[in-house]
Amino acid sequence: MLDPFFKPKGVAIIGASRNPHKLGYGVVRNLKEYHYQGEIYPVNRSATEILGESCYSRVGEVPDPVDLAVLIVPATVVPETLRDCGERSIKHAIVVSGGFSETGEEGEKLEKELQAVADELDIHVIGPNCIGTIDTHTPVNTTFVTGMPESGEIGFCSQSGAMVASVIDWARGAGVGFSRIVSLGNQAGVNETQMIEALREDRQTKVITAYIEGVSNGEKFLESAKKAALEKPFVALKGGRGESGAKAVASHTGALAGSAEAYESAFERSGVQQADTMEEMFDWARALAWQPLPKGKRVAVLTNAGGPAILAVDALESAGMELADLTEETRDYLQSRLPKAASIKNPVDVLAGSGPGTYAVALDAILTDETVDSVVVIQAPQDWFLPASLAEVVGEVASTHDKPVIASIMGKASVEEALNILHKRKVPNVSFPERVASVLAAMVKRKEWLEMPNGTPDPFEDINTESAQALANQQQWQQLLTEYGIALPPQKQLSSKNEAITFADSIGYPVVLKLVSDSISHKTEVNGVKLNLHNGREVEEAWNEIARSAKEAGATMDAGMVQKMLTGGQEVIVGIKRDQQFGAQVLFGTGGTDVELLKDVASALAPLNRQQAEQLIDATRAGTKLRGWRNQPPADREAVIDYLMRLSQLAKDLPQVDELEINPLYVLPKGQGAYAVDVRGFLAESMPEELSV
Amino acid sequence: MLDPFFKPKGVAIIGASRNPHKLGYGVVRNLKEYHYQGEIYPVNRSATEILGESCYSRVGEVPDPVDLAVLIVPATVVPETLRDCGERSIKHAIVVSGGFSETGEEGEKLEKELQAVADELDIHVIGPNCIGTIDTHTPVNTTFVTGMPESGEIGFCSQSGAMVASVIDWARGAGVGFSRIVSLGNQAGVNETQMIEALREDRQTKVITAYIEGVSNGEKFLESAKKAALEKPFVALKGGRGESGAKAVASHTGALAGSAEAYESAFERSGVQQADTMEEMFDWARALAWQPLPKGKRVAVLTNAGGPAILAVDALESAGMELADLTEETRDYLQSRLPKAASIKNPVDVLAGSGPGTYAVALDAILTDETVDSVVVIQAPQDWFLPASLAEVVGEVASTHDKPVIASIMGKASVEEALNILHKRKVPNVSFPERVASVLAAMVKRKEWLEMPNGTPDPFEDINTESAQALANQQQWQQLLTEYGIALPPQKQLSSKNEAITFADSIGYPVVLKLVSDSISHKTEVNGVKLNLHNGREVEEAWNEIARSAKEAGATMDAGMVQKMLTGGQEVIVGIKRDQQFGAQVLFGTGGTDVELLKDVASALAPLNRQQAEQLIDATRAGTKLRGWRNQPPADREAVIDYLMRLSQLAKDLPQVDELEINPLYVLPKGQGAYAVDVRGFLAESMPEELSV
Repeated sequence: MLDPFFKPKGVAIIGASRNPHKLGYGVVRNLKEYHYQGEIYPVNRSATEILGESCYSRVGEVPDPVDLAVLIVPATVVPETLRDCGERSIKHAIVVSGGFSETGEEGEKLEKELQAVADELDIHVIGPNCIGTIDTHTPVNTTFVTGMPESGEIGFCSQSGAMVASVIDWARGAGVGFSRIVSLGNQAGVNETQMIEALREDRQTKVITAYIEGVSNGEKFLESAKKAALEKPFVALKGGRGESGAKAVASHTGALAGSAEAYESAFERSGVQQADTMEEMFDWARALAWQPLPKGKRVAVLTNAGGPAILAVDALESAGMELADLTEETRDYLQSRLPKAASIKNPVDVLAGSGPGTYAVALDAILTDETVDSVVVIQAPQDWFLPASLAEVVGEVASTHDKPVIASIMGKASVEEALNILHKRKVPNVSFPERVASVLAAMVKRKEWLEMPNGTPDPFEDINTESAQALANQQQWQQLLTEYGIALPPQKQLSSKNEAITFADSIGYPVVLKLVSDSISHKTEVNGVKLNLHNGREVEEAWNEIARSAKEAGATMDAGMVQKMLTGGQEVIVGIKRDQQFGAQVLFGTGGTDVELLKDVASALAPLNRQQAEQLIDATRAGTKLRGWRNQPPADREAVIDYLMRLSQLAKDLPQVDELEINPLYVLPKGQGAYAVDVRGFLAESMPEELSV
Repeated sequence: MLDPFFKPKGVAIIGASRNPHKLGYGVVRNLKEYHYQGEIYPVNRSATEILGESCYSRVGEVPDPVDLAVLIVPATVVPETLRDCGERSIKHAIVVSGGFSETGEEGEKLEKELQAVADELDIHVIGPNCIGTIDTHTPVNTTFVTGMPESGEIGFCSQSGAMVASVIDWARGAGVGFSRIVSLGNQAGVNETQMIEALREDRQTKVITAYIEGVSNGEKFLESAKKAALEKPFVALKGGRGESGAKAVASHTGALAGSAEAYESAFERSGVQQADTMEEMFDWARALAWQPLPKGKRVAVLTNAGGPAILAVDALESAGMELADLTEETRDYLQSRLPKAASIKNPVDVLAGSGPGTYAVALDAILTDETVDSVVVIQAPQDWFLPASLAEVVGEVASTHDKPVIASIMGKASVEEALNILHKRKVPNVSFPERVASVLAAMVKRKEWLEMPNGTPDPFEDINTESAQALANQQQWQQLLTEYGIALPPQKQLSSKNEAITFADSIGYPVVLKLVSDSISHKTEVNGVKLNLHNGREVEEAWNEIARSAKEAGATMDAGMVQKMLTGGQEVIVGIKRDQQFGAQVLFGTGGTDVELLKDVASALAPLNRQQAEQLIDATRAGTKLRGWRNQPPADREAVIDYLMRLSQLAKDLPQVDELEINPLYVLPKGQGAYAVDVRGFLAESMPEELSV
């Protein structure tokens, strides 16, 4: 559907120019200079020829074949020019021109006109206010930006034209090759989700990368992104993650923001890996495109110097990777082959005097070792062998194994040839060894995501949906939880001592007895709370004492509240929260009054299957604690998993519930359940009012 | 004292060689090629001339002036060669040769011999197993490594030769100029602390940078580092921060490790700024060398494109920086000067159509604005003006203000000239705008450190040191705390009801009464604990009930423990812990049973003055909470400050105390004090045994 943007048979450049300082010149120049093999039709009223190509005064005069138009004309004439294209049967157009919704009200009106024409004549539009498209394999470059990136396997799609321009410039010589690059501009037509589809379908694109400020439609994005990520790695850089950044995005694109957390959950769920910087995004992309995924986290480091290896090890550890142990066999073998003073433990240090031959022998042994999942090869600068020869060796040996190898042939001035060889051999290189850590961690993460069961959970069948709807609408949150099988601490208000004892017997001891009295507010001040009652007799005594204390304080005991006393458990928070873009998220974390202080809350998109619920729990310190911590016995993690899945279903069943928070959920030791001690909720209807404040 | 290493009058190269593949050739070549103006004396038994310089067969024959020797001879002959140097009155020697302590026992022996000769003849030795020294201002390059870094203001000292070699290679063309570079090798003579002294004294060095795996002597390092950091910025990269990395360091250098936390505290105290990667270290160093320090955290971003500015803002926010508001005056001014659709709010976006002129006007206005402490100037690639012209403008305008400016002229291939101009103008540039954040945060941090009072606190005079010594030796931790003015929760074991009431009256209500009975272990099971007693009568009743319950359980009530009931406070952990290298550290953080889970504990080196104690508190979430959190009132932060300073004195007074931990310290609301609920300690004597396990 979007093919003509990347493999056009003929391109009409409307607004082509003879003036080398104009964008309309740049587009014609790029098409020619970067070896586009199809037809090039400059459209210009006054010129007869531009860069050797005959001009046409109107797009209607352009001959066949033509299936793509690039518009570089003033914004005000874009709608009618687009109409001309449609009437000439050109169904794909890149609108480079700016002056639309990014400039204010008038521009917005023009953009609507543009959209109307596109809809009417069924034209696919990229832009306006964009830079265009590049396909290095066709090859075609419809942009005006100087430079053509090396051909490669990375597809890059960006909501910022500036990012595209800087990536093109930066990529030259950086060892990063691209298959397709596209700048989406204002997305009046083609949006990021459709473009991700196109990159997924492109055979030459092995890895999808994207700079994303917002998505057009959360649900559709999730679907397309997941489909894409299942087929090929998908790495994204999200602009506007912080509060100030999000504000800047809002004023930059005007897109529905969605919270940073929701984006994180959405990326996580759909297998999109979120990089922190541009450099990291392309570091990851290159490794994911070139090298096999590691089976696990165990890394071996092979080096000719201690210092750089130590920095790599520090970074690997802090990225959650592990150092491989190496088998005794490998160590004995290395001992027999390496210089006497070499370190045969991981990091394996062949010492400064060893050359490519020694590296080859050691690398082969390490890659063969079953305790090793991936290898980092470091070469500190030396003057006695060509780094290029090490590059050959690493490339060759790595290609005979199915484990990822990342190189760090250090330096800059002296290693250019080596890097060219490594890149030809598809071994990524980083100039400082610390950078390997995030690369390998990203590869492990992709492997884990691919292995994670991602089916939709079966619905719980013990829920009466009709009654649930009613309870939600009446904001009867406690009863709603009960309907969804989430237990409240057993408690009951009772008017006599005997009833209290009977009830306490039925819920099990210990229990708490509390004074219920209209005439007293602070129960503790009159000794109106008795904790830790172990049997009926103690309940009876407590009732008597409370009644006496109340009387002494000049009040009456109207009733007694008997509650199951919860002890020896852990307080967590669970809940749901709805995001504008991506719908309901399920939350889990450390509960109590310090939730916001401790910031130990993770979230995941609903629905949650069992594995996803476990992953959510395990992403927090609260989750670590649930498994048993110091003197605290393992808690009823199963109950929490069950509740998280039930809440995820609640979120799906009851779209009117905007937020529901159980804090604390009191989790008793294993097998003893968990109880929602406190719950608060908000209906969606009430939100717009709050937002309008 | 170390001057001849950097400004020698004449250099003897012992082991000089005619073979271009030998290190002994490289040293002579570098001296000549990189324009050393002093005398060059190759020493070689068989050659008559190397690279045009006359050879000498023994160092004893070398004529005056000669004050530095570089030894590239087999390890076994190094001691005698060093003796020859000493006898020739050469008091400074660089031993490049390897084969010493880094290779095992025999090598260690040789290194001891080398040291003995050096001591005897009073020779300053750098190395062995090192790369040598560079001074770009002299100029002199005693290394064999190809390439001479650009001349500049950064001094770099490294315990890894490989890091030096890679930095030399990488620095060429990276816009980073060096004053001095030195590789320290095994540090048989000159160590890192002495070298820091030398860099501090060097007029040409404006910023000290160091790759440090370990320090030779914690106390001396602290002293020198602080003295240096007060004079010039000092940035360090520490190798071996993680557990595996620390192990690798131990086997690499055999140095006394010291814990990663202690290094962090030591760096923090002495004003050494710890970078995370090599790139970050030199990013910081360049900015600190070239630009003034910002007055505060408020950053303005000036850009010609939205996307890159958003990434910068995200990174700034996550580094703890703030976006400057800009005054209305500035905004009005920008409104009147910039294109209509430009964003006049921070980030200020001049849009893609604006050139260096517009940038100049906007930058000048922003730098003038009093709400702005620093400015980031971003230029996304464009084709219509030379990036070099923007570089000129930024350099010129920045130089007329006293606020730091960091540029991000993006791209690579097209911006080389611009970068040269910026670097000449001393405006740092980063190729992707995210990198500005850590740079500016480091500058702010230095500013804050310089402003922080760092005097030694006055000793507390209410402490009986003699009695404290005795209590410590007897491991009477609770009494020791009392001696140091740290309160324990008032409590007393009493044998009668009336005594209990009298004591409760004296400490104030509410109190807790606990059963003391030899015949019962679980007090709660026989209802042996009564909480929250508000007056004498309630104490009496509670006593009676406990006695009755005990009797019913077949036990006797031997006594009652009356404790002040602590409520409404916060649990923190405070303590001291001794590090092998840097001595005592004082700890503070979130207390309770989850200390290790929450990892909310910070540490600072003793002694602590008031401001340092406050900084320690404020570095944790527990510290945030002490100031009052949600419904919790502000806690007695003053008491915590006082206790931390008292603990710091305890650490100084009692070196035999290896570790002392108060957890929890129960901090009551403001003005009500804090109580050490639980304390445990260890004496230093017991440690070696534990370590030897």
